[in-house]
Amino acid sequence: MKIYKKAFLPKGFQASGVSAGIKKNGLPDLALFYSAGCALASCKFTSNKMQAAPIQLNKEHLNKNKLFNAIIVNSGNANAFTGQPGLMDAKKTALCVSSALSVSNEAVLVSSTGIIGRKLPLMKIKTAVPELVEALSEKGIDTAKRAIMTTDKFSKEITVDFDIAGRKVRVCGIAKGAGMIAPDLVGARPACATMLVFIFTDAVITQRALDRAMDISVENSFNCITVDGCMSTNDTVILLANKAAENETIDSGKHFAAFSKALNIVCLELAKMVVRDGEGATKFIRIKVDGARNYMEAKKIALNIANSSLFKTAMYASSPNIVGRIVASVGAAGIAIKESNLKIKHTLLKKTDVDIEVSVGKGKSSALIYTSDLTHEYVKINAEYN
Amino acid sequence: MKIYKKAFLPKGFQASGVSAGIKKNGLPDLALFYSAGCALASCKFTSNKMQAAPIQLNKEHLNKNKLFNAIIVNSGNANAFTGQPGLMDAKKTALCVSSALSVSNEAVLVSSTGIIGRKLPLMKIKTAVPELVEALSEKGIDTAKRAIMTTDKFSKEITVDFDIAGRKVRVCGIAKGAGMIAPDLVGARPACATMLVFIFTDAVITQRALDRAMDISVENSFNCITVDGCMSTNDTVILLANKAAENETIDSGKHFAAFSKALNIVCLELAKMVVRDGEGATKFIRIKVDGARNYMEAKKIALNIANSSLFKTAMYASSPNIVGRIVASVGAAGIAIKESNLKIKHTLLKKTDVDIEVSVGKGKSSALIYTSDLTHEYVKINAEYN
Repeated sequence: MKIYKKAFLPKGFQASGVSAGIKKNGLPDLALFYSAGCALASCKFTSNKMQAAPIQLNKEHLNKNKLFNAIIVNSGNANAFTGQPGLMDAKKTALCVSSALSVSNEAVLVSSTGIIGRKLPLMKIKTAVPELVEALSEKGIDTAKRAIMTTDKFSKEITVDFDIAGRKVRVCGIAKGAGMIAPDLVGARPACATMLVFIFTDAVITQRALDRAMDISVENSFNCITVDGCMSTNDTVILLANKAAENETIDSGKHFAAFSKALNIVCLELAKMVVRDGEGATKFIRIKVDGARNYMEAKKIALNIANSSLFKTAMYASSPNIVGRIVASVGAAGIAIKESNLKIKHTLLKKTDVDIEVSVGKGKSSALIYTSDLTHEYVKINAEYN
Repeated sequence: MKIYKKAFLPKGFQASGVSAGIKKNGLPDLALFYSAGCALASCKFTSNKMQAAPIQLNKEHLNKNKLFNAIIVNSGNANAFTGQPGLMDAKKTALCVSSALSVSNEAVLVSSTGIIGRKLPLMKIKTAVPELVEALSEKGIDTAKRAIMTTDKFSKEITVDFDIAGRKVRVCGIAKGAGMIAPDLVGARPACATMLVFIFTDAVITQRALDRAMDISVENSFNCITVDGCMSTNDTVILLANKAAENETIDSGKHFAAFSKALNIVCLELAKMVVRDGEGATKFIRIKVDGARNYMEAKKIALNIANSSLFKTAMYASSPNIVGRIVASVGAAGIAIKESNLKIKHTLLKKTDVDIEVSVGKGKSSALIYTSDLTHEYVKINAEYN
């Protein structure tokens, strides 16, 4: 297995990014991902009840269709809380892309991130699509990964190569997201600056194995991070598998472990990068809760600590008050714990990376949550973002 | 009914405050409240599972005893997460006060606020108690109300006088609290800089009527505010009724409405003052959610908005993004709402007082939540507090 901290598209995938003028700053804001060979898709969307128009459209397409060729993504506008006109804009975006690529309309997935509640500038997108299709290439991923960014300070990308019975298989992922991060992609909780993740693999794999691997990887990565406890209307993880590697088919038994391991690495590394780039973050904090009766209990306690503004400001200051604030957060989770059983340990607070270990002495389950601190810069970014 | 925005103790109550040296800054940090005539008590404590030692002790006293003479309160140290030694310190504090006042040990209630996890400086308290008892007077409330403060910028106080069949009855309340504020005092949710509230009345009232009035008033006031969504280990509301007004007895039927109305005003005004003094707050925000199927649903949505860091930073900046952030928060509450039924209105964002109205179009229930914004000053206060 080889891991590259850079996005290299698997066989058969191409990408491109352009500036369509949706963002005010003139930076790239429209990305296209394309595979001429039809790809299976496995998708996770926010559990926020106010789902953005592109998510509504993707769900329609996923219900009707099983094979996909393209994803079009814009930054600068979330196309959320835009009602029926917003859904029409998402449809027209997909239609424009599908006709430019000569693929079925339902084979195109759509994704948006940015300001909520503003009409999507459809004309700007339509005008840019021909250029976007023209620019498609393997190397185009380098512009595409920047075109999906909003408040991100750096691009999030990773590639994992591994071997299935002598054939090289690749999983490559890119992500955007820095704030409004507390994803809940399997129905457990919600996220807000929106996290978008696009993962591409050339693996030959069954739909069932693809979905199962996705479930496992997302729960242990994106669903274990929180920047600000705010769940977005647009959180999206899309995984496309175009079968170009011509490997022996991966199913839920055979070769599953190898594929699942690669996907786990891609998801977890991208999730950690999102936390590291958390809006205004100066610290990367790993909170491990153990001694819980079950995983959900451990996760609830860990998230309660991670989402506490008092914990996060104390982390920012490397304050010795941190222990008291962890105690209050643990108790606020609503799970009865004996004070004498509660043990709290942490590594050096002044470092950039801090590990917190909380043991609650009730059982044998544990959970790991990754988060960042709450800083002056977070307030500045989110007060000024528009 | 007469309302004074200042604390005037009811008949039979005295108070005092001194500097015992618990706080580093030399300001008053120890307060005593006393009624020579025994008083009924009605108390609400945090639902945080990590309850501070004074709360554990009060629960013991309230289980064994029905009549009370005094409350001793210290600021600067929460006596929380201090284990069995902390509980002994709370007991010794009560014992010291009870012997100085010549009352039963179990007739003394104890309250603490400040840093979590540090040993209470018992000797400093013991040394100061004689002076504290000596200083007891009606006017002593003016020092006592300052001695309970931590990060508070102003004292919170109110007095309501009303008439029961020709006799004047008074309800007077003081409060402290600015951060770690998201109280849940009836078992619904939790709070964190701790909110302490002490209310005194000379009313002749039955225990049952006192408790019922307390339930109603607390649910509609302290349980409807949030500064930072963090529930404290020490949140406390204590109401003492010493019967000195010699009014016709208030019971659950007779005269109940008049008493309940006065207590409602005292609690709601104190709760609003806590929000206005929210750590770093520049705005006082009233969030009304209506059209919910029931009160708890409306409250859940309103609290989800109020506790969103993205909502709070946008409020700080008077940002037009506020609508999008409200939409995301409403959806994150996990209650299915039709996008087309969601209506959001707000008053001028640039003003200090802002009203937000969210209608979700599902039913006829509503809830009101009071909160503040998330500012640079909040981060500064909580990063530096120690």
